[in-house]
Amino acid sequence: MKNDRLIIYGKNAVAELLNSDRLHSVNALYVQKGAKHLGEYIALAKKAGITVKEVSAEKLDSLSDGNRNGGLATALSSVEYSSVEEILGASANPFILIADGIEDPHNLGALIRTAEAAGVNGVIIQKRRCVQITSAVYSASAGAAAHMKIARVNNLTETIKELKSNGVWIYGAEADGTAYTEVNISKKDGKVALVIGSEGRGLSRLVRENCDFVISIPMYGKINSLNASVSGAILMFYFAEKGGGRD
Amino acid sequence: MKNDRLIIYGKNAVAELLNSDRLHSVNALYVQKGAKHLGEYIALAKKAGITVKEVSAEKLDSLSDGNRNGGLATALSSVEYSSVEEILGASANPFILIADGIEDPHNLGALIRTAEAAGVNGVIIQKRRCVQITSAVYSASAGAAAHMKIARVNNLTETIKELKSNGVWIYGAEADGTAYTEVNISKKDGKVALVIGSEGRGLSRLVRENCDFVISIPMYGKINSLNASVSGAILMFYFAEKGGGRD
Repeated sequence: MKNDRLIIYGKNAVAELLNSDRLHSVNALYVQKGAKHLGEYIALAKKAGITVKEVSAEKLDSLSDGNRNGGLATALSSVEYSSVEEILGASANPFILIADGIEDPHNLGALIRTAEAAGVNGVIIQKRRCVQITSAVYSASAGAAAHMKIARVNNLTETIKELKSNGVWIYGAEADGTAYTEVNISKKDGKVALVIGSEGRGLSRLVRENCDFVISIPMYGKINSLNASVSGAILMFYFAEKGGGRD
Repeated sequence: MKNDRLIIYGKNAVAELLNSDRLHSVNALYVQKGAKHLGEYIALAKKAGITVKEVSAEKLDSLSDGNRNGGLATALSSVEYSSVEEILGASANPFILIADGIEDPHNLGALIRTAEAAGVNGVIIQKRRCVQITSAVYSASAGAAAHMKIARVNNLTETIKELKSNGVWIYGAEADGTAYTEVNISKKDGKVALVIGSEGRGLSRLVRENCDFVISIPMYGKINSLNASVSGAILMFYFAEKGGGRD
């Protein structure tokens, strides 16, 4: 599936893209005129046959919508989305992250970055009620979005049912669930999906009803919630520790 | 210790402040004229004898430096810092977070929020080479900074030596340390401090040399680092799970 062309900016995001198998989607590399220490990016692009364009700082600022860009930007012809089947097929024991209604691009980007580092095989987002894979998400993921299979679905509840029928255990994160440390997660569980809801609203009702387990992070202080990307990070690495999703 | 007055904005940050024992530092509550659903904040402030001022949206935007404020802001007469001794005395088995050179206010705020939720007794920051407790840090902490003992020190290495002489085990997080899951952390360790360095530079050399353990988070994908606030969250909750710091 394709959407409009995407400008990716910032050293990390551009470097990961140039080192990923999505390199073929890169149309051009924009480098700030006179900027130093960018030689390795130029070399990477040239090696891949990508046109390198020297542009002014103003042009780069405009490409990155005024966000910090480190003197680098690149245009991607399309965002490549994967199918749920591709994610299921990525590993004998896939480890999947499902974002339920995450609207903040920084949170979605941070979740994708942590997911990639935690060994997650694919991320599933909604086509509606959820931020899509934009430039801001790409940058917030520090480029991890270039390495991650991301599927967009119309109906998360139907997708969860499909995953369950493929033997995937669904763990939903919610404030009032069982403490995650009390739930027995072991390698034998094999296929797992972790569902993270939005900070304000949590999981949507039907999603919650279709989870095999509803888990929560115990709060030891006065604050009663964590940022969605932080909750996701704690749980994803807990699953990673337990061998969740790895063959 | 005191610094200049601080404007705290946003619903979470203001609510936590009004519900904290730092209430006496609040000079006034600014509420956007005509804004709905803010009655509980006005009631809290009035109950505490704090002056409530109705102001225009423009005035609030100016108070919050153009950041999202949810129609609420408050002026704090001072930031109250704690001493390292107060943090050590907060629990028989204190659980301490040390921020080594964290320059980004969002990262420091996010670390403080997660620390409060993980049961951390106090956060130690540097007087130099580190962001101080600003409005942006307060807001990024979703108000958790109002509940947290925060000490500022001149020399982190000397502070770490002082903590060690008080029986605190120092765990520094670094990319090339021992996997955190391989380090035996148990309740018997009692007093623990976790040191998080900046994303770019990691721990400073002398700090690292004075850690009892250098631990790292295994990276299972292609991305080779996590955001400092995410690394901190994963490790703080791992310590919390193991009973680190709790009596």
